Amino acid sequence: MRIVFYEPENTFGQIRTGVLYDNKVIDVNEAYRSFLTYNEASASSADQLVPASVNDYLALGKAAFDRTKEAVSHAIEHQEDSVMLDRNLVTLKAPLKQGAKVICVGKNYRNHVSEMKSEIPDFPVLFAKFSNAMIGPEDQIQKSSKTNKLDYEGELALIIGKEASQVSRDKALDYVAGYTVGNDVSARDLQKRTPQWLQGKTLDHSTPIGPWMVTADEVPDPHDLTIKTTVNGEQRQYSNTRHFIFNIPYLIEFISSLITLQPGDVILTGTPDGVGFAMDPPQFLENGDQIKIEIEKIGILENDVRQ
Amino acid sequence: MRIVFYEPENTFGQIRTGVLYDNKVIDVNEAYRSFLTYNEASASSADQLVPASVNDYLALGKAAFDRTKEAVSHAIEHQEDSVMLDRNLVTLKAPLKQGAKVICVGKNYRNHVSEMKSEIPDFPVLFAKFSNAMIGPEDQIQKSSKTNKLDYEGELALIIGKEASQVSRDKALDYVAGYTVGNDVSARDLQKRTPQWLQGKTLDHSTPIGPWMVTADEVPDPHDLTIKTTVNGEQRQYSNTRHFIFNIPYLIEFISSLITLQPGDVILTGTPDGVGFAMDPPQFLENGDQIKIEIEKIGILENDVRQ
Repeated sequence: MRIVFYEPENTFGQIRTGVLYDNKVIDVNEAYRSFLTYNEASASSADQLVPASVNDYLALGKAAFDRTKEAVSHAIEHQEDSVMLDRNLVTLKAPLKQGAKVICVGKNYRNHVSEMKSEIPDFPVLFAKFSNAMIGPEDQIQKSSKTNKLDYEGELALIIGKEASQVSRDKALDYVAGYTVGNDVSARDLQKRTPQWLQGKTLDHSTPIGPWMVTADEVPDPHDLTIKTTVNGEQRQYSNTRHFIFNIPYLIEFISSLITLQPGDVILTGTPDGVGFAMDPPQFLENGDQIKIEIEKIGILENDVRQ
Repeated sequence: MRIVFYEPENTFGQIRTGVLYDNKVIDVNEAYRSFLTYNEASASSADQLVPASVNDYLALGKAAFDRTKEAVSHAIEHQEDSVMLDRNLVTLKAPLKQGAKVICVGKNYRNHVSEMKSEIPDFPVLFAKFSNAMIGPEDQIQKSSKTNKLDYEGELALIIGKEASQVSRDKALDYVAGYTVGNDVSARDLQKRTPQWLQGKTLDHSTPIGPWMVTADEVPDPHDLTIKTTVNGEQRQYSNTRHFIFNIPYLIEFISSLITLQPGDVILTGTPDGVGFAMDPPQFLENGDQIKIEIEKIGILENDVRQ
């Protein structure tokens, strides 16, 4: 399933959870309500079992997905048009819970480490983004006037599905709700002017994720996905997640040994080589640039830059 | 005023906002309700104007403080015992909104930079803590088994009182709701094993702040406060906030030029010299150690370490 978080037309700020189906968005809460009614159960429990809001839905983690599947199958089978919206009439938002941690992994592809003239790390390099930075698939990347060296980083992102603390790597994938695409936009000048990258990594409205969350059951092997970034149609990054230095089970074991992860938390798994900073001469993002990141089996995340 | 966030006895997880007065905690929402009733106004507006919950209260920022003052004066004048609790019967919690950003400033005292054999930065060094790390004044600092080099860092913390973006330094103090004490507990081994400090800075249950928020009106000059840290009664840090490399107006201007700050966000302003890592030989925190950080005009934050 492709789970989307969407804003229906003319409903400011009311973000709801849906599933993408053909050119429709099936509202999962409404679909479950309808499924319950059809089965002569009380529809009122739908709000608890398959909540409409991103926060409540992601907080349930994987528990909500099986119910969502039932509800969506029911809606499709019975052609329940009343719970489906035209894809073009809604705005897709970031698959992100309010208050979610966004944990980024740096230096996780060998060729990127090498292009940055850096060293292969002995341990995963972790850094943070704050919520002020996060935007959705239909938002524009804001180029702050404080930077002249804004750069893209196409990345596979994973979304945690249940509380994870001290998880061993052999069980780690059970804690992944699904996958999405992230663009770890980085202001290289601000990132590098102090020893800590944070100030170049968490500029307001800089970091898109989306366009949806593909549930983990559809990605049995997250370490064999082509990842490709283009800027204004020109290919810049082309790699595969098999080139991770630290794979996803290792990252979850490592991070959860230090930090308790909650449903809805996001891990950005690092970018491959081909960033603008490492080009000769370096190329940075300008007003109007269009960045398109495509990850096999996951989807395409496409955003413009706006000064 | 000393604003506290407290858990009354036997009310699991119901954290309310209060003001410390002698040996009492005055519940601000109840006090305002009583004040409204006394003035023949509708008490029901108290929930909006002076909310009980930390999140709602801090989200209002400074707007809530004037009302709180009125309510508290009224309660004291009229000896409204029904809105006062015995200090010893409540637990004080961190002055922290859910989802608040915790932005830390590194290398902000010259003598600390020098003891860490580091260089005076040209720009404030910013790094993050996640909410998993944050604990209150009556909690114990959890020493993870992943570190053998846990260290204290006594710091002045400030809490933002209204949304701050592109704030100039001459207006910056208007955006501060108040001050508290923070202990930026740091696992030196984890902090230094990769170029980014995050993994050593955001261990679960590692970072206390509190014991309360002193409103900014009581701290006209936050750059003349003695700060002192003891471990098991032995003095380790003794300095004054006048030794900041970057002062608070500069920090707010700098941070808000990159990151929009929200009411309730916390800035930890850096630690002076005297950390355990820089002692000869280095001294790290062990199970049972008692750390006490005292900042003039703000208060004392005291926490034990528990393995």
